[in-house]
Amino acid sequence: MARGNGNLIVADSSPVQEAPISEALRLRLEALQRDYVACLDDGRLDDWPEFFTDDCTYQIISRDSHARGEVAGFWFCDSKGMLRDRILYLRESSIRGLGVTRHILGGTRLLAWENDVVRSETSYLVVRTSREGEPQLFATGRYLDTVDIQGSVARFKEKLVLTDSSRIDMAIAAPV
Amino acid sequence: MARGNGNLIVADSSPVQEAPISEALRLRLEALQRDYVACLDDGRLDDWPEFFTDDCTYQIISRDSHARGEVAGFWFCDSKGMLRDRILYLRESSIRGLGVTRHILGGTRLLAWENDVVRSETSYLVVRTSREGEPQLFATGRYLDTVDIQGSVARFKEKLVLTDSSRIDMAIAAPV
Amino acid sequence: MARGNGNLIVADSSPVQEAPISEALRLRLEALQRDYVACLDDGRLDDWPEFFTDDCTYQIISRDSHARGEVAGFWFCDSKGMLRDRILYLRESSIRGLGVTRHILGGTRLLAWENDVVRSETSYLVVRTSREGEPQLFATGRYLDTVDIQGSVARFKEKLVLTDSSRIDMAIAAPV
Repeated sequence: MARGNGNLIVADSSPVQEAPISEALRLRLEALQRDYVACLDDGRLDDWPEFFTDDCTYQIISRDSHARGEVAGFWFCDSKGMLRDRILYLRESSIRGLGVTRHILGGTRLLAWENDVVRSETSYLVVRTSREGEPQLFATGRYLDTVDIQGSVARFKEKLVLTDSSRIDMAIAAPV
Repeated sequence: MARGNGNLIVADSSPVQEAPISEALRLRLEALQRDYVACLDDGRLDDWPEFFTDDCTYQIISRDSHARGEVAGFWFCDSKGMLRDRILYLRESSIRGLGVTRHILGGTRLLAWENDVVRSETSYLVVRTSREGEPQLFATGRYLDTVDIQGSVARFKEKLVLTDSSRIDMAIAAPV
Repeated sequence: MARGNGNLIVADSSPVQEAPISEALRLRLEALQRDYVACLDDGRLDDWPEFFTDDCTYQIISRDSHARGEVAGFWFCDSKGMLRDRILYLRESSIRGLGVTRHILGGTRLLAWENDVVRSETSYLVVRTSREGEPQLFATGRYLDTVDIQGSVARFKEKLVLTDSSRIDMAIAAPV
């Protein structure tokens, strides 16, 4: 059951599930997630920052580090400009050529919403395939997202990528 | 097309798909599945039995064994109390520390429904990541579920976990 | 935003997602994809051609080859009869016994639709498990589909399976 608190609606975290409160909103977030991972898997990296608001934060950190309250992770960006810089760096460096990715997502769960801002979580699995190579399971984890919805446009205001593994891999130089 | 038979509605098993009969019901089952695997992946094992009815059955068995009509599988529990005992055992034993799981599910398919009881199937893939380790593909298979819906609450009355592999792994001590 | 062009509706490819135009249509395509992969994962190969129109084309090719404009891939069939021949060949050859598959799909994205014909894309991941073996990540990629909808029946008019890897594996003798 959703609980009202002023304008904030919080999805119930109890294990017993009930009829969806806002399935249309949830389906819309799933559409955003589908488009987001299609952008990455198609290699359209220049488009990637456009999925974020100007004042966004984007972070990749292990779930263990995050649970301990640490803030230093694999990546931290706090503006769309910083995301664009990352992509420029990737284009100029030799880190690419790591092949292609395939993101497979679980369904999106609504956590809370207030006016035009929605918090949600989505499980992800990423497979990487190098040129002429075989597919390798690269990473799994969970997106914790805050999405800003303005009319017909939805963008990530915060994207926290919580990786299940604590090991660093150079390939994390590419966005997840 | 659904076929009526008294109160029992059976989803057509023919390969040709038609417009969904009860998409709202199906989406609701998917919500239950999402919450179920989030509970496991978040490590909230004490909450896990709450997804089941008091008189539930929960079984993990390979698809080959099940196809041969065998009933002895990796796990068999026939009450919510037995599920709670399993969790107590896991907490007290050294089997944990196996790391975390990530379940990625396929979409849920409705098989039949009658009044408040729904049968469905859902493909699953489980990745395990040990502390400091890399993600490992652990298991794939199919859930065959009977779900009891009482007003706003949906719970598993029967959950049959059919694993694609016939090999036993100690980690199966954790629920899937 | 969808753009009209005569009867052709083209889904906007911009990275910013908006409210779904035709979520009901998209959900229907996802139902078709779910039934399609369930047919393969259940081993009901004789049913597989029934998911296609009589004049269908079915092709498996690597994304790199396809991007270079090549047409020679791993598989090419241009009629339902040819799909049936493939299945007969598989039944008679020793290629089977490769175990079972598990397809996990990402969400389906609508690309364009015109009257009763819809183009869409869907990410896939396939795991193979041999008899008594452990699950192995076999392939990832993307379906590019043209679906023909006639009343309550939806079938693939074109199915282009773009594999992320360029390596050939004998197991590709089975449909994806």
